[in-house]
Amino acid sequence: MVIGAKPPKRPFASDNSAGAHPAVMEGIAAANQGHTLAYGSDPWTDRLVEEFSRLFDTDVATYPTFNGTGANVLALGTVLGPGEAVVSTPWSHITVDETGAPERILGTKIIEVPSSDGKIAVDALASLDHLRGVQHHSQPGVLSITQVTELGTVYTPDEITALVDASHERGMRVHLDGARLANAAAAVGGIESLRAMTVGAGVDVITFGGTKNGGLGAEAVVVLDPDLAAPVPYLRKQYNQLASKMRFLSAQLLVLLRDDLWLDLASHANAMGARLYEATRKIPGVDHPWTPEANSVFPVLPLDVVSPLQEWSFFWPWDPEKGQVRWMTAWDTTEEDVELFSLGVAEIMGS
Amino acid sequence: MVIGAKPPKRPFASDNSAGAHPAVMEGIAAANQGHTLAYGSDPWTDRLVEEFSRLFDTDVATYPTFNGTGANVLALGTVLGPGEAVVSTPWSHITVDETGAPERILGTKIIEVPSSDGKIAVDALASLDHLRGVQHHSQPGVLSITQVTELGTVYTPDEITALVDASHERGMRVHLDGARLANAAAAVGGIESLRAMTVGAGVDVITFGGTKNGGLGAEAVVVLDPDLAAPVPYLRKQYNQLASKMRFLSAQLLVLLRDDLWLDLASHANAMGARLYEATRKIPGVDHPWTPEANSVFPVLPLDVVSPLQEWSFFWPWDPEKGQVRWMTAWDTTEEDVELFSLGVAEIMGS
Amino acid sequence: MVIGAKPPKRPFASDNSAGAHPAVMEGIAAANQGHTLAYGSDPWTDRLVEEFSRLFDTDVATYPTFNGTGANVLALGTVLGPGEAVVSTPWSHITVDETGAPERILGTKIIEVPSSDGKIAVDALASLDHLRGVQHHSQPGVLSITQVTELGTVYTPDEITALVDASHERGMRVHLDGARLANAAAAVGGIESLRAMTVGAGVDVITFGGTKNGGLGAEAVVVLDPDLAAPVPYLRKQYNQLASKMRFLSAQLLVLLRDDLWLDLASHANAMGARLYEATRKIPGVDHPWTPEANSVFPVLPLDVVSPLQEWSFFWPWDPEKGQVRWMTAWDTTEEDVELFSLGVAEIMGS
Amino acid sequence: MVIGAKPPKRPFASDNSAGAHPAVMEGIAAANQGHTLAYGSDPWTDRLVEEFSRLFDTDVATYPTFNGTGANVLALGTVLGPGEAVVSTPWSHITVDETGAPERILGTKIIEVPSSDGKIAVDALASLDHLRGVQHHSQPGVLSITQVTELGTVYTPDEITALVDASHERGMRVHLDGARLANAAAAVGGIESLRAMTVGAGVDVITFGGTKNGGLGAEAVVVLDPDLAAPVPYLRKQYNQLASKMRFLSAQLLVLLRDDLWLDLASHANAMGARLYEATRKIPGVDHPWTPEANSVFPVLPLDVVSPLQEWSFFWPWDPEKGQVRWMTAWDTTEEDVELFSLGVAEIMGS
Repeated sequence: MVIGAKPPKRPFASDNSAGAHPAVMEGIAAANQGHTLAYGSDPWTDRLVEEFSRLFDTDVATYPTFNGTGANVLALGTVLGPGEAVVSTPWSHITVDETGAPERILGTKIIEVPSSDGKIAVDALASLDHLRGVQHHSQPGVLSITQVTELGTVYTPDEITALVDASHERGMRVHLDGARLANAAAAVGGIESLRAMTVGAGVDVITFGGTKNGGLGAEAVVVLDPDLAAPVPYLRKQYNQLASKMRFLSAQLLVLLRDDLWLDLASHANAMGARLYEATRKIPGVDHPWTPEANSVFPVLPLDVVSPLQEWSFFWPWDPEKGQVRWMTAWDTTEEDVELFSLGVAEIMGS
Repeated sequence: MVIGAKPPKRPFASDNSAGAHPAVMEGIAAANQGHTLAYGSDPWTDRLVEEFSRLFDTDVATYPTFNGTGANVLALGTVLGPGEAVVSTPWSHITVDETGAPERILGTKIIEVPSSDGKIAVDALASLDHLRGVQHHSQPGVLSITQVTELGTVYTPDEITALVDASHERGMRVHLDGARLANAAAAVGGIESLRAMTVGAGVDVITFGGTKNGGLGAEAVVVLDPDLAAPVPYLRKQYNQLASKMRFLSAQLLVLLRDDLWLDLASHANAMGARLYEATRKIPGVDHPWTPEANSVFPVLPLDVVSPLQEWSFFWPWDPEKGQVRWMTAWDTTEEDVELFSLGVAEIMGS
Repeated sequence: MVIGAKPPKRPFASDNSAGAHPAVMEGIAAANQGHTLAYGSDPWTDRLVEEFSRLFDTDVATYPTFNGTGANVLALGTVLGPGEAVVSTPWSHITVDETGAPERILGTKIIEVPSSDGKIAVDALASLDHLRGVQHHSQPGVLSITQVTELGTVYTPDEITALVDASHERGMRVHLDGARLANAAAAVGGIESLRAMTVGAGVDVITFGGTKNGGLGAEAVVVLDPDLAAPVPYLRKQYNQLASKMRFLSAQLLVLLRDDLWLDLASHANAMGARLYEATRKIPGVDHPWTPEANSVFPVLPLDVVSPLQEWSFFWPWDPEKGQVRWMTAWDTTEEDVELFSLGVAEIMGS
Repeated sequence: MVIGAKPPKRPFASDNSAGAHPAVMEGIAAANQGHTLAYGSDPWTDRLVEEFSRLFDTDVATYPTFNGTGANVLALGTVLGPGEAVVSTPWSHITVDETGAPERILGTKIIEVPSSDGKIAVDALASLDHLRGVQHHSQPGVLSITQVTELGTVYTPDEITALVDASHERGMRVHLDGARLANAAAAVGGIESLRAMTVGAGVDVITFGGTKNGGLGAEAVVVLDPDLAAPVPYLRKQYNQLASKMRFLSAQLLVLLRDDLWLDLASHANAMGARLYEATRKIPGVDHPWTPEANSVFPVLPLDVVSPLQEWSFFWPWDPEKGQVRWMTAWDTTEEDVELFSLGVAEIMGS
C-alpha cells in the first residue's frame, strides 16, 4: 500500500514535534542582552512571577523549570508529606511516562485507581479510604490529575472542584499536571475557565506547560497556596531543575502569557483537532470511539493500514492490538496539513 | 566610598551571567524549522553524537542535558554501584552547590577528602582504604574531580592520569565535572589537551559544560566507556533531564563544537582573566594569593572596600572573613570591561 | 448475636500472632553465653551460612535480617539494576503492605500486573514487552513472586520454572518472597520441593521467612547465585537490617533448620488450615470460594455475622463488602482450637 | 610476644559483644505466651509506651525498633524537612558507620562540622549560617548529637541545652543519638540527668539504646514533642523497622526500664571503664590521652604490642597509625575481667 497523496508538512505525531513560535524566539533573542544575574535573580523572572499572579488573579508562587517531568516531580514534592503516596490514574504521565522519576526522586509510591477515560472519579478516592490510618500502607496524600488528560479528555471546573473537595476532606492535597492546561482552558472557555479549574477549584499546585504550546522548552510550577512555597527553591535545585540562565526560560513564558498568546495557540491546536476529527470521521473504515475535546484524536484503523500510513506521515500507535492510534495537532498545524492528511487517510482506506 | 569611574558593561559576577553567543542563537533559530521527532530522535542530536566522538577521537556516548547539576547527577548515576559513595573535595560543586541533589536522587553519600587548592591528591584516595571491605561504611566507588576546579586551578593531564590509575586500581570509576572543561583545555593547550585529560587519562564519564561557555542552556554527559552507557537513557529521564524538544539543546552544542568555537570562547575568557589579574595585581592593597589558571581570579581586598565595590559593579564574595572575593570573566568579557573595572578598583583603593 | 461457645485459645488472626517455638527460645538462650563478635562474626552465623547451603544443596550466600519487609527490600536491591522496575501482582506484600519501603529505599517503581489468584501468569510478562527499550518507561528488571501467595495459593515448581525462564529470556532477575516459603514447601512435598521451586527453577534471590513459622523475629535473604552477593553486606546495613547481636537471629534460624523443624511446623500449620476448612465447609451459610492450599482460609460469611464472630475470636477481614474474611493457622494451632472455633461459627450461623 | 597470663573471659571489644542480661531473657520468655496481635497492638508495647512517658516525666511517643541505625534513620526522618540537611560531627555514627543509610533512605545530606572531642560546639552552628536562605545549599535542618559521643565523651545537660537553643533559634530540630544514653545518664547523675539532657534541654527526638546495655536487640525512637509523631508509624514500616512480633522488643525494654535496671547496668559498665583506666594508667608505656567519661577507654600503646595484645584478647583499633586503641566495657564486665586484662597489658609492656 503506497499512498500517492502529498503528505502534510507537519505530521500529527505530537505537539512536542513542533518547534517554537516565532514570538517566543524573538522573546529569547530580546532577553539575550548583556549580563544579568543567574538562577532567577533577573528582571524577566521577576516579571514572570508577577504575570502569573495576574493570570490567576491571586498571589501565586511561580517557579520556571526545564521540562514537564521536572515540573511534575517538583510540584509533587511540594505537597507530599512523609509516609504519603500519590494517587493517579494508570494512564497518568507521572506513572507511565516518567521512567519512575517520582519514585526515584521523591521516594514515593504512586497508587493507581482505575479510569476508563483518563479522569478520576470522586468515588475512586473513597475506594482508598481503607488504607488510611493503617501503618502498613502508604497514606494517600496527594491526588494528581492531568488536564487535558492523557486520553484527550478535559475535566470541567466542577469536576475538579468536586475532586479537590473530596481530597481536602481527607487531608490530601491536589496537584494538576497541566502540560496541556492551555488546551483545556481553551476547550472549556478561556481565562475564566483556567481560573475556575485551578484557583477556583482549590487546586494546591500545578504544572503549567509551555513547551508543547509554542515554547522552546519551559514549564512552570505554580504554587497556588503560597504558604506551601517556602521549600520550593531548594527542591527545584535538588531535583535538577534550576536553570542558571533562567532569563531564557522566563522570557519564553512571558511571551506566551503576553496578550494571551498561550490561549490563542491552544485554541488553534484544538480547532485543528476538531477539524481533523471532522475530516476523517466520515471516511469508511475510520472509527472514532472518542470525540476529541482538545488537540488529540484517537481513531481506530484497520490493522493493516496503520504501518503504511505511519510510513507516509508519522504518528504514534495508542493501542496496537486494536488498531487505535493517536493523531495530535499542534500550535502550528495548518488547515492544509489537516486536509492533506485526511486525503491520505481516505486514499489508503480506498474511499 | 563612592566610585566615580564608569562601571564595566559586563560585571565579573559569573560566566553564568553572560548571555548566549550570537552563533548559538543563530543555531537555535536554524533548528526551529518545522516538525521533528521529540526526545532526541532528531537530526541535530544525531549529528551531535557524531561530533562528540570526533572531538574525543573515539566512540563516546553523548547525552545532552539541561544543566550542570543534572549532568553531574546523571554522570555519577552512570558509574555508581550499589552501596557505594562518591569521593570529592569539600569544595566540589556536587557537595556544596547542588542542594543535595546527588544524595537525594542517587541516595549516595559524598565523602569529602581535604584539599587546599581544589584538587585531590593521589594520597587522599589511600586515606580511604581503611573503609574498604568493611560493611559499616559506604564503599568509595566513584572519584569525582572538577576541571577547572572550584578554586580556579587546573589539573594537568598527568595529574588526572595518576588519579584515574589510583582509582581504577581500587576498583573505582572516575567522573570529571567539566562545567568549565573548555577553560581547562584552553589553559593547558587545546584539543589535544582535552583528549589527554579525559580519554587519554582513562576518565570514565564527564560532564561537558556548554552553558557557561556561550550556550543558552545546554550541557552533555559524555560516557567515555560506551559499555557503561546502556542505562543512561532511562536514568536521564528519571533524573528530569530528558528534553522533549531536544534539537534545541543539540543545536547549541553543535554550534559550540563547530570550528572549535568552544575552545575560542574559553581561551578568550581565560585571557581576560589573566588580563584582569595583571591589571589589578599592582594596585596597592589588592592581594592575589592565587595566580589565575583559567577564567576566575580570587583577590583579597581590604574588608571595607568589598561592599562599595560590589555596589558599583557586582561580584560574589568567596571568603568574607578574609575579604577574599571572586572575579570571573566570561566568553563576552571585553578588554574595555577589564580596564574599566580595574580603574574602579584602583580608585577605591586610593591609588 | 452473642456466642456462647468457648473461644479457641489461639485465634485465627495471623501466624504473626503466635509466639516463638520453645526450641527457638532454647536456641536463643543457648546462644546467650559470654561475648562474641558482633555484626555476624560469630559461630552461630557461620554455621547458619553452611546450613543454608546444605538446605539448598548448593553454595548460597545467606544474610539474616530482622523482618520480612527488610528482607524483601534487601533481596530486591540485590538484583535491581539502574532504571529498572519491579514487577508483581497488585496483591503483593511489597506493593500493598510495606508502606512504600521499596519505592523509598530502592527508588524503584513497582509495576503491577493483574492476577486473580495471587499468581503471575507467564503471559503477564509479555504484556510489558512494549515498555522495553523505550526511555520513557522504567524497564521491567525484576519479577517478584510470593510463595505462598497473599491469596493463599501455592505455585508449583513448574510454574515458577516457567516464570523464571520467561524472565531470564527478557534479561530480568527473579525474587521470591518466601515469608511463608516453608508452608509452600510443605504443601508441595518437602525439601525436594523447596529446592525445585527455588534453585531448581533458577530463582535468583529469595526471602526465607522464619518469624511466622515459629521464630521470635528472624528472616534471611538467600542469594542463590553467589555472584550477585558482593554488595549485599553493605546494602544490608544501608537498609537498616544489620543486627549487632546477630547471633540471636542466626540461633533462631539454626533451630528452625535443625532436624527440619521448619518443615514440620509449616506442615502442621497447613494441616490445621485444611482441618479448619473441612470443619467449616459444611456449615450452612459459610461459603468457601477458594480451597486452601497452605495455612490460610478465605471464607465468605453473611455480612452481619462477621463483627460478632470477630468480637468472640478475632480474625482479619479480607474483602469487607463481600463478607470475605481470612482465617489463618499457625505453627501452634491445635486441633482443639479448630474445633472450638468451628463450633462458634456453627453457633452463630444457627446450625 | 606471647602473653602467658590468662585472658579475661569477656574481652573489651565492644558492648555489642556482650549477650543479653538474664532478666531480659526472662522477660522475653515471659512474653512468649500464646497469641497476641502483631505489629505493636499488644499489651507489652502498650505498657512500654506508658513506661517511657513515666521515665521522661512527660508524655512522649515511643516506637520500638530493631537496631540503632534504624532508630537513627527513623528519628531523623521524623524531624527532617524538605530540602534540609542533617548536621553532625565527622565522628558521628550516622555519617561514618551506617553505610550511608541516612543518605539512601532519607535522601539527605549530612553536613559535618569539625570537632576534636566528639562534641559539637555552639559556634559550629553559626559557621553554617551562610548557607541559610541560599537555594544552592541544603538547608541545615536537624542537628544530630551523640550521647555518649563516639569518642567516649559526655555532654553535660547545659551543653545540650545550649545546642538546642542555638538550633531552635535557627529553626532547626535536634536529634540525640542515644545508643549509649544510659551510660551518659549514669555518668552525669541518673534519671534526673537523663531528663535534664533530653526533655529539659528541649531535644526533639531521641534514639534510646537498649541493645548495648543488656538487651538482645531493641532500641526505641522517643519523640519528645508528640506533635511530631503523627507520621512515625508509617515511616517506621517504610524504613524496615516495624517488628511483627513486637512484644519481644517491648518486653526487652520493659525489663530494662523496670527498677531502673538500665541505669544500674550502665553504671556498672562505666565503673568498669573507670577501673580499667585506673588499672592500666600506671603501666609504663600505656598512655591515656583521654580520661574516660563512660564505658570506653582510648589508650595509646606502642605500635608493636597492639597485634599481640589483640590476639591474646581482642579489641578494636581506633587510630592505627598512632597506636590508639579502644577498650570498651559492657554491662557484664567483671572486676576479674579488668584485673586479668590489666595483667596481660602489664606483662606485654614488660612491667
